[in-house]
Amino acid sequence: MNTVELLALTGGVGGAKLALGLQALLPDDRLACLVNTGDDFDHLGMHISPDIDTLLYTLAGESNQVAGWGRADETWAFMAMLGRMGGPTWFQLGDSDLALHVERTRRLQRGDRLTEVTAHFAACLGIAARILPMSDTAVRTEVLTDSTSLGFQDYFVRLRAEPTLRAVQFRGHESATLTHEALEAITSPSLKAIIICPSNPYLSIDPILSVPGLAATLRRSGVPIVAVSPLIGGRAVKGPTAKIMSELGVPVTPAAIAAHYRGIIDGLVIDIADENDRDACGLPTLVVRTLMETLQDRITLAEQTVAFAQTLPRR
Amino acid sequence: MNTVELLALTGGVGGAKLALGLQALLPDDRLACLVNTGDDFDHLGMHISPDIDTLLYTLAGESNQVAGWGRADETWAFMAMLGRMGGPTWFQLGDSDLALHVERTRRLQRGDRLTEVTAHFAACLGIAARILPMSDTAVRTEVLTDSTSLGFQDYFVRLRAEPTLRAVQFRGHESATLTHEALEAITSPSLKAIIICPSNPYLSIDPILSVPGLAATLRRSGVPIVAVSPLIGGRAVKGPTAKIMSELGVPVTPAAIAAHYRGIIDGLVIDIADENDRDACGLPTLVVRTLMETLQDRITLAEQTVAFAQTLPRR
Repeated sequence: MNTVELLALTGGVGGAKLALGLQALLPDDRLACLVNTGDDFDHLGMHISPDIDTLLYTLAGESNQVAGWGRADETWAFMAMLGRMGGPTWFQLGDSDLALHVERTRRLQRGDRLTEVTAHFAACLGIAARILPMSDTAVRTEVLTDSTSLGFQDYFVRLRAEPTLRAVQFRGHESATLTHEALEAITSPSLKAIIICPSNPYLSIDPILSVPGLAATLRRSGVPIVAVSPLIGGRAVKGPTAKIMSELGVPVTPAAIAAHYRGIIDGLVIDIADENDRDACGLPTLVVRTLMETLQDRITLAEQTVAFAQTLPRR
Repeated sequence: MNTVELLALTGGVGGAKLALGLQALLPDDRLACLVNTGDDFDHLGMHISPDIDTLLYTLAGESNQVAGWGRADETWAFMAMLGRMGGPTWFQLGDSDLALHVERTRRLQRGDRLTEVTAHFAACLGIAARILPMSDTAVRTEVLTDSTSLGFQDYFVRLRAEPTLRAVQFRGHESATLTHEALEAITSPSLKAIIICPSNPYLSIDPILSVPGLAATLRRSGVPIVAVSPLIGGRAVKGPTAKIMSELGVPVTPAAIAAHYRGIIDGLVIDIADENDRDACGLPTLVVRTLMETLQDRITLAEQTVAFAQTLPRR
C-alpha cells in the first residue's frame, strides 16, 4: 500500500529529532525517512549503519537523550572487555547496540538487502514509519583534508572532526541505485511534502542527494521540498556543520544553506536568531524557533514545517 | 625459555578445574595446557573457542562458578537485544565474553595464529600459564547419530546432547599440525609429567589426540602420562560422558576409561566411589576423592595427581 504522505531526508541525531516530531504527526507508515548511509562502515567484522540506528532508536523512543547518540540505558561491558583484550576502542559499541550490528551483518551476509534488514529491525522495535536507506549500494563518505583522504568515521569519531575539511566525496555513489522502496515513497500519490531535516548538509544530506537520479526524482514528485536549516545564529546545535562551512569558505548563514540546496528546495525554515538573514535566502522562508529541546519542540517544529510546506505551490 | 614442567591436556569446564589446581602448584609459565579446539565454531561471523575461553576465564579467576561456564558477573544485554531483533539465541553470548570472540576474529583475520591470539589474551588476563590450542589448523568435532552428522555445538548446545551418539569424527584432523609452541612444551627438558584432565574422553580429549603425531610425541617425551577419570560411581560430574559411553556400548567404568587411553597413559586416577573397579583397570591407579567442589579440592587433586605421576617410572 503506497500511502506515504511525508518523506524526510535525514542523517543522524539532529535530523532524527525532527523525524520524531514528524512521527508524532503521522504515527504510521505514512511517514517515510530516507536515511544517509554514507557513514556506514565495516568495523570489527560488522556492518555498522550509524544514522539508520539513530533513527531506529529515536523513533522507537529508545535513544539516549543525554549523550545525543546511542541507546538509553546502554551498558558497556563489551567495550570494557574489548579494551582489556587490546582491541580497538575508538568507536563506542554499547552492549545492546552491538546486537543490531551483529544481526545486520548476519542478514546482509545471507543476502538480505540493507532496506529489508532495516524494515525488519523497525518492525521489531515497533516502529510504523518506513526507515529507508538512501541506497542498498555501498556509498562511503570520505573527507579530503590538505594531506589525505579520511573515511567518515575516522574523521568524525576517531579524529573528532578536527582535521580541516577541504572537500567531501561519496565513494561509490556513481553506481548507487535508488531502491524500489525509496522510489515508491517518493512517487507516492499521497505525498504532500518532502522535508530535508536539519542534519549536516555536507556530510549527512549530500550523500543522499549523491545517489544518481535521486534529486531529479524528488523534483519530479511535484510536492514542495522544504529544508530546515541546521544553523542557529551562526552555529550548529551539534556537530561540525559551522566549522565545515568556514573551512569551505562559505558564510555560516541560512542564505548559504539556501544556496547549497538551490535547485532542490522550495522553501527554508530558519531560526528566529537568523531572522535578519531572511531576505538573503532568496526563497520563501519560515522563521520559527528551531532548537528542539523537548519532545513538544520536535512536534511543534514538525507541524510548523509541514504547514509551511503546504503554503508553497505544487510545482 | 623452555621451562615447562607440567603439561595438561584439557577440554572445558571439568578439565579447567584441575588446570586451576595445577596452576596453584606452578603459578608461572612452567604449566602448559594443551586445549581442545574441536568445539570451535563460527557463529554470527565470529570465531568462538569455547574450551580455550573456559581455560582463560578459569585460570584468570573470572569464571562463573555457579553456571559452570562463562564469566562471573556476566551481563546479557546483547543477548536480550539480539532476541528482540530476531537473531539466533540458542548459543548464549555474554556481553563481556563477546569481546573475546570479536577481538579473536579480528586478529585471526589479520593473520595472527590462534596460538598467538590465545597467548595475547592470557597475558591481558594476567595468566602466566601457557594456554596452547591443540593446533592452529581447524579441526571440527562432529557427532554422528543414526540419521545425521551434527556439528559439535549443534549437538551439544542446541540439541543439549540429546541425540544418540554413534560415533565421533574430527573433521580436518588429518591435515592438522602441532604448533611449535605445543611441541616446545611437550619436549621441554624440564617436563615432569603429562596430565590428562577429567574432561570428556570422546569429545574433549580425543580431538587433541587426533592431531597427527601428537600421541606419539607425548609418548616420546619419556615422562609419565596420567589421566584423571571423569567418572564418579558410574556417572560424570557434568556433561554427557556417561550417556555417551552407554550409547557407544562401553561400560561406564574407570576400566573402560583405562582401556580407552591404552597405549597413551601410564596411570589412572579414579574416584573412591570406583575403588572396586581398581584392579580391572590393568594399570597403576590412584584412588582418591576426585570431586572438585572447592578451590582446595582442585589443588589437592592436582597435588595428588602430580605426586602419583612421580611414582611412575620414566619410560
